[in-house]
Amino acid sequence: MVLELKRPQDATLQALAGSTRTFLSYLLSFVYIAIYWNNHHHLFQVVERVSGGVLWANLHLLFWLSLVPFMTSWAEENDYAVWPVVGYGVNLFLAGSAYFVLQQAIYRTAGGSSLREALGRDVKGKASVVIYVVGIGLAFVNPLLAIGVYAAVAVIWLVPDRRVERYLAAREATAAD
Amino acid sequence: MVLELKRPQDATLQALAGSTRTFLSYLLSFVYIAIYWNNHHHLFQVVERVSGGVLWANLHLLFWLSLVPFMTSWAEENDYAVWPVVGYGVNLFLAGSAYFVLQQAIYRTAGGSSLREALGRDVKGKASVVIYVVGIGLAFVNPLLAIGVYAAVAVIWLVPDRRVERYLAAREATAAD
Amino acid sequence: MVLELKRPQDATLQALAGSTRTFLSYLLSFVYIAIYWNNHHHLFQVVERVSGGVLWANLHLLFWLSLVPFMTSWAEENDYAVWPVVGYGVNLFLAGSAYFVLQQAIYRTAGGSSLREALGRDVKGKASVVIYVVGIGLAFVNPLLAIGVYAAVAVIWLVPDRRVERYLAAREATAAD
Amino acid sequence: MVLELKRPQDATLQALAGSTRTFLSYLLSFVYIAIYWNNHHHLFQVVERVSGGVLWANLHLLFWLSLVPFMTSWAEENDYAVWPVVGYGVNLFLAGSAYFVLQQAIYRTAGGSSLREALGRDVKGKASVVIYVVGIGLAFVNPLLAIGVYAAVAVIWLVPDRRVERYLAAREATAAD
Repeated sequence: MVLELKRPQDATLQALAGSTRTFLSYLLSFVYIAIYWNNHHHLFQVVERVSGGVLWANLHLLFWLSLVPFMTSWAEENDYAVWPVVGYGVNLFLAGSAYFVLQQAIYRTAGGSSLREALGRDVKGKASVVIYVVGIGLAFVNPLLAIGVYAAVAVIWLVPDRRVERYLAAREATAAD
Repeated sequence: MVLELKRPQDATLQALAGSTRTFLSYLLSFVYIAIYWNNHHHLFQVVERVSGGVLWANLHLLFWLSLVPFMTSWAEENDYAVWPVVGYGVNLFLAGSAYFVLQQAIYRTAGGSSLREALGRDVKGKASVVIYVVGIGLAFVNPLLAIGVYAAVAVIWLVPDRRVERYLAAREATAAD
Repeated sequence: MVLELKRPQDATLQALAGSTRTFLSYLLSFVYIAIYWNNHHHLFQVVERVSGGVLWANLHLLFWLSLVPFMTSWAEENDYAVWPVVGYGVNLFLAGSAYFVLQQAIYRTAGGSSLREALGRDVKGKASVVIYVVGIGLAFVNPLLAIGVYAAVAVIWLVPDRRVERYLAAREATAAD
Repeated sequence: MVLELKRPQDATLQALAGSTRTFLSYLLSFVYIAIYWNNHHHLFQVVERVSGGVLWANLHLLFWLSLVPFMTSWAEENDYAVWPVVGYGVNLFLAGSAYFVLQQAIYRTAGGSSLREALGRDVKGKASVVIYVVGIGLAFVNPLLAIGVYAAVAVIWLVPDRRVERYLAAREATAAD
């Protein structure tokens, strides 16, 4: 599935302004996919040989990410009604969980305890999943508020995960000794 | 071709539930492509230099996989009528055969007899092709039953092919001696 | 641009049979893109560092290949009328020429005279371009005949280019001395 | 988002000629994306390890590039009216700025002062951004003139950036001493 952005009907500035919400929803989904792509890239720098389990955990994550454009377009076409926004949140929740499972699969194969220590308690990962649940609950009260909560999680993640960078630097330093 | 998933018409939970079959068919096709992608990735870990024959066998497989979204959408638009479901099965049968041909091409180029021994009698590969034929036959009786049979093959393959992993581990152990 | 394959209107075997020409045109375009992809992959095995000139020659080829689906759909929607079939041939001619330019750029950067010798007089490459011109001429007489001529070039190329494989094997043998 | 090229309505040479403007706009957007892809490829040859900052700067650039097909189709559907052409220019301006930010991020991570010296004062990069602003201004007078100005920037960049090639060659020469 491909993220879509429909062009405004007219060639006026007003028509473009009328697309603001569409644009913001495109931006949010783009940022979400970018966040996963970035952290994913980081995570795989650690992996030396990919096992069957890691491949499957990876495709499991990819499956939920492949539904993000679907949920985005459902929410948008229905003016951010309750159920599509709930669905969007459930989708993000499942993608977040899949990322957690992928991390575990990589621990088991490649990293061992030193990687696990480097990543620490994974506060951001666990917090995100909790915040998604809060957002899903809020969607029943006010869907736009829920979108705001989902966006807040994105902002938390925009700061890249420096733990893996530190781990790689430390490993190189050790190897150089 | 790209796997497509159409959004529900309305913003209700019922509309989403009405998309269950569409969703399941998206899931089945996604899983099929994932299975090939995974086994493919495994297989190519063994290959050191890609010959012309392997490239062609690979594109032959890609050709049949590229038709999966086409067959999925044909079956779905026609409510899983007999011929589209037969076509879907024939497509899977041809992709399964193409994978077998690719394996043979890789044996000839890279692996030699030790890889062939490691992969053993390839029970799963041969069984799949037979089960597809059974599924195609069943489609004339009950198309949904045939879809169930195709899905059963997917489940068999969800367990990744550990033979290649064992082969690589053994080769590394030998190299370390 | 993406190669497209429209599903038959009905769920009957006749409807599928009615799509034969569509299917064959999808197959021809797929094979063309596969041929370029394969030879391209072979060619780049020789290159050690990509210069600006090679990158541009590569994108130039990509540009003409990106028009193949466009020409395919124009020809098909118009029942293989004269001009679309001429356009398809011109497109293939330009892609063939771009491949030739790319080869020259790679010679200059990476291979030197030994690669040039290995590739020999490039009979197939030059013959293809001539045959395309013949096909374009024939399109004014009978468009389907022209399609047959284009397909004949594809068949010539289905045999992969063993020259590069021999060159790589020879280079490795020399390095091992 | 994917660059789109609509086929002509009829199978005549006139219909194809009627698509000239569409074709030119496809060509311009293709060339823009090709320019970024090429310079991007060059730039990343210098990078040895990708930091979080570089990944984000990269995705930031990708975001603006992902809007180019959207702006192209908006401008084209509205016969190159003022606002869509202004939007196209603003988009190119933002992509140009994002490329500058990416360069800075790479300097900080990988290259140090020697790379910065090699790239010199980056005259082309700075000139482009200024010319885009001129083009955006001209769009209010004559949108087609503005498109011409945008195309002029593309022509400036078609000459690949030899600075990075020289830098890499120099670094290799130093390493060989």
